[in-house]
Amino acid sequence: MRLRHKPWAGEKLGQYPQYAIAEPETYKGHWAEVFGNPNPVHIEVGTGKGQFVTEMARANPDVNYIGIELYDSVIITALDRLIEAELPNVKLLNVNAKDLKEYFEKGDVDRVYLNFSDPWPKNRHEKRRLTYKDFLKLYEEIMVDGGEIHFKTDNQGLFEYSLQSFSYYGLLLTFLSLDLHKSDFEGNIMTEYEEKFSAKGQRIYRCEVKYQS
Amino acid sequence: MRLRHKPWAGEKLGQYPQYAIAEPETYKGHWAEVFGNPNPVHIEVGTGKGQFVTEMARANPDVNYIGIELYDSVIITALDRLIEAELPNVKLLNVNAKDLKEYFEKGDVDRVYLNFSDPWPKNRHEKRRLTYKDFLKLYEEIMVDGGEIHFKTDNQGLFEYSLQSFSYYGLLLTFLSLDLHKSDFEGNIMTEYEEKFSAKGQRIYRCEVKYQS
Repeated sequence: MRLRHKPWAGEKLGQYPQYAIAEPETYKGHWAEVFGNPNPVHIEVGTGKGQFVTEMARANPDVNYIGIELYDSVIITALDRLIEAELPNVKLLNVNAKDLKEYFEKGDVDRVYLNFSDPWPKNRHEKRRLTYKDFLKLYEEIMVDGGEIHFKTDNQGLFEYSLQSFSYYGLLLTFLSLDLHKSDFEGNIMTEYEEKFSAKGQRIYRCEVKYQS
Repeated sequence: MRLRHKPWAGEKLGQYPQYAIAEPETYKGHWAEVFGNPNPVHIEVGTGKGQFVTEMARANPDVNYIGIELYDSVIITALDRLIEAELPNVKLLNVNAKDLKEYFEKGDVDRVYLNFSDPWPKNRHEKRRLTYKDFLKLYEEIMVDGGEIHFKTDNQGLFEYSLQSFSYYGLLLTFLSLDLHKSDFEGNIMTEYEEKFSAKGQRIYRCEVKYQS
């Protein structure tokens, strides 16, 4: 299985099946079983060290959160947070975002969060950006009709690219802030990265977009 | 007629019929007659003192420009510029933008420029913003199919509002810069206002949107 070559991380993740879902393909179409309730499921693609998804889960007990993270080096920190937080409504998946359809079917997910995603600034890496059209199609294929993407970043180039990508895909721009920390937006939960960069005076860009049927 | 109560401005505008079109309703559907050629027509709604439209006309002799401005106090300066510039491809209309359909019919205009439009920041004044949906409909009704709006402003709130308004209207976001003067965008022609505010380090936001058929 996928963790074969990462013995240390795999071993620790394996010790906490209540937080790190070992065989997520088992729950495709049945995520309510994992959480023990039919609440909406919000996923964060690229959850990093897990501060966002953990604090969102704490603030919103009626929503089920799943943090998706490929890299061992950070997901282990996210796991430590979850062990500490002891929340029933947040889980981790140590998988690649491009394989989301192996774990979720149409309607399984209500919202996708993208926070400070890798900008992949070179044109030849456009397809790796999590707001590239193929990813927008992938999210659509696992979300409910009218599902939403909530996206924030400090990277101006990625934000410019993403707003255009959303427009070309036909997504509706339902919220936009070009300077989140100076706006009247309430209830912002910061990522580790956001805390660090906004403290330096860096602008944070944020938007919400919605799929139209 | 509309200039009755502005004798001084009206008189001066009336002395230069080659630059200030006195009875624009006459040319509805026939703007090629005014310019003596069938080149594309780009209008600037709220042309102010006319620097943008004059310099665009100088830089692009194969495009016909029309600057539309309601206020006497500034259109007189725009007229002085045109007298000085002696360009055949730029005209002024001293009319209200909400009456555009009196002067233009479907297909008369190829592109609309909106530069540093009044932000009308209060919610109750939303309908006055030149990117409000009723104005987007108005521009559509006088433009060719696939017509474009090119918009720039230093006002963050107006830009946020406008990108959402464009999205709800179904316009395609074909260009976006969140910091125009630090971007690699070439050929930017500045307005008087833009020169002043960008010199203070104020960011300029710019986008292009396209009507989809």
